[in-house]
Amino acid sequence: MKKVFSPFAAVPADSVSDWRESGLLREIARWMAAFPKASAAIDDDCALLEVSRERRLVTVDSLIYGRHFDDAVEAYWAGRKLLARNLSDIAADGGQPSDAVLALVMSGDVAKGWLKDFYRGILENCVRYGLRLVGGDVASVAGTGFFSATLTLTGFGGTRVLRRSGARAGDFICVSGTLGGSLKSGRHFRFEPRLALGRLLAEENLATACMDLTDGLAKDLPALVPAGTHAELDLAAIPLSAAAEGVGSAFSDGEDYELLFTVAPENFERLLSRSGDLKISKIGSIVAGTASAGTPFGLPFGGGFEHF
Amino acid sequence: MKKVFSPFAAVPADSVSDWRESGLLREIARWMAAFPKASAAIDDDCALLEVSRERRLVTVDSLIYGRHFDDAVEAYWAGRKLLARNLSDIAADGGQPSDAVLALVMSGDVAKGWLKDFYRGILENCVRYGLRLVGGDVASVAGTGFFSATLTLTGFGGTRVLRRSGARAGDFICVSGTLGGSLKSGRHFRFEPRLALGRLLAEENLATACMDLTDGLAKDLPALVPAGTHAELDLAAIPLSAAAEGVGSAFSDGEDYELLFTVAPENFERLLSRSGDLKISKIGSIVAGTASAGTPFGLPFGGGFEHF
Repeated sequence: MKKVFSPFAAVPADSVSDWRESGLLREIARWMAAFPKASAAIDDDCALLEVSRERRLVTVDSLIYGRHFDDAVEAYWAGRKLLARNLSDIAADGGQPSDAVLALVMSGDVAKGWLKDFYRGILENCVRYGLRLVGGDVASVAGTGFFSATLTLTGFGGTRVLRRSGARAGDFICVSGTLGGSLKSGRHFRFEPRLALGRLLAEENLATACMDLTDGLAKDLPALVPAGTHAELDLAAIPLSAAAEGVGSAFSDGEDYELLFTVAPENFERLLSRSGDLKISKIGSIVAGTASAGTPFGLPFGGGFEHF
Repeated sequence: MKKVFSPFAAVPADSVSDWRESGLLREIARWMAAFPKASAAIDDDCALLEVSRERRLVTVDSLIYGRHFDDAVEAYWAGRKLLARNLSDIAADGGQPSDAVLALVMSGDVAKGWLKDFYRGILENCVRYGLRLVGGDVASVAGTGFFSATLTLTGFGGTRVLRRSGARAGDFICVSGTLGGSLKSGRHFRFEPRLALGRLLAEENLATACMDLTDGLAKDLPALVPAGTHAELDLAAIPLSAAAEGVGSAFSDGEDYELLFTVAPENFERLLSRSGDLKISKIGSIVAGTASAGTPFGLPFGGGFEHF
C-alpha cells in the first residue's frame, strides 16, 4: 500500500480553520521564529530589506496541490520544491538569493501538521541556501481540498547577470547534470538548484546566455537561440539520467532544473576546469543561418531526431 | 437587475484555456507592452531590478474570487484593488513603490476579456502610482470558477521607515480620512492609498508609529499600543464616512485603508499644516499604565463604548 501524505485533515480539529486566522498567523510566526537565520518576524505591513548591493533580482512561482504535488509526497518536499524552483531561477541568472515572501491561498481543511511541515521544507532550505523568508500573507477559499502557495524570491546579481539573450553563432550549447525522467524518479522534488554554477558562469564571464530547464529541451532551448541562427545538437552527447527513457526524455519530460547555457569555444576548457564535481556536457552549437527543415517548437535540429 | 461582471466565460472559446499557456503568456506580454512605463518585458527567469537605494520594502497580498470580489465588480476594479492594497502597505511604512510581480492561479474557464481588464486595472494604476510590474507566473487548477492573484510589491524607504512599534505614552492617536461603511459604499475598491501622507510622516519625522487600517480599529489599533500603555479614545472625534452606521462601523467594518498613526503632541500642529487637503483627525492618546477594565481585543477604551 502506498503511503499517503494528504494536505487535508481527516477531522475538523486537525484543520487550520480550527485555529482561526489569528491563531494560524501566531503558529506561522512560531514556526518561523524557530529559524532565526532564515526569517524575519512578520509583524508589519512590509518586510524591510536592509541591503547594500545594487542589482536586485526578483522571481515568483506558485505550487498547487493536485498540479505540482499530490498525496504521494510529504509536505516537507512540497515546501522544498517551491523554494528550489525559485532558487533555480536565481541560479539561471547567476544571482544569489536574499529574501523571500510567501502567500498561501487554501481551504480551511488543510491539516495543521501538514502545513507546519510545509513551512519546515521552506525554512530549512532557506538556511541551507542562505536566504530569509521575510513576509507573507494567508487567504482562505471556500470549499475543501484546495492548497496553493506563491513564493516571491529576491536576490542580487554580482558584477554581471546572465540573461537568456546573448548567445552568438559559434557558441557551444552546454548543460549541467543529467536530463530526463525527473517526474518518474522523484528528482523534481530533490534536485539541487545550480546556484554555484550560475554564479561561476556569471562572475567569471564564462557563459553568453543561460536559463534553467523546466519544460525540457524542446520547449526551453529555442529561448536561447538568437534570430538568424539555429541550434545543431549532437543527440549522442545529451547526458541522460538513469530514469530517462531514451533521448526523447531530455526533450519532453521537463522539471530537470539543470542549467542550459551557451559558452564561447575559447572558454569551454576553462569552464570544465572550474566546475568541480558537477558534470558539464557540450550538447551542440549555435550555428549562423536558419536550418533547412523546420520542426515543431521552431527548433531546427542538426542531428537526426528520433522517437517523439 | 444588477449588472454582472463574471470572471468566467460562458463559452469555451472565450476562456483563457482556449489560448493554451503559450498564447496566454503572449497575450499578457502584449497587454504589458501597451504600458511601457509600468512594466518590463517578462522574458527571463528573473526580473532584473536596477536600483540604487538601499532600504528596500517588500509586501505581498492575494485577491481571490468569491472572497475579495465577486460578479458585482468589474475586472478593472478587482485588479486595481489588488495593487492598491499592496500600495497601502507601502504607504503605511512611509515608502515609495518601485517594482511588482504578479502570480495568477486560476481555472481554465476565466474569460479572456475579463483577464485583460484585470491587468489593465493593475497596469493603469502602476502608471498612476509610479511603479512597474516586472514579472509574473501563471498556473492553472482543475475544475471551474477559480481565480486567485498574488501581487508582491517592492519599494524603498527614504531616510526613515515607519514601523508599527515606536509609539510612546503621551502620543496622540491620529487617523487620515473617514472610517466605516467601506464595503457598503464600494470604497474598498476605489480608495486612495495614502502614499503622500506616509512619506510626509516618515521624511519629516512626524509619526512615531504607523499602520494602515484594514480590519477596523478594534482589531488594528492594539498593534500600535506598546506594552505597559493603553489607548484612550475620544469616540466623538472618530471621523465617520457617509456610509458608516454609527461609530461601531469604524471599529469593525474594515477595509478603510486609511493610515492610523501616533504623533508626539509637539508635532501635531506641524502635521496639520503640512497635510494639505487630506483630513487628519486626532482620535485619542497613548496613556501610560494599563486600563482598569479589559475589553475584547485587549483594547482598553477610555470613552464609553456603545453598540457592538
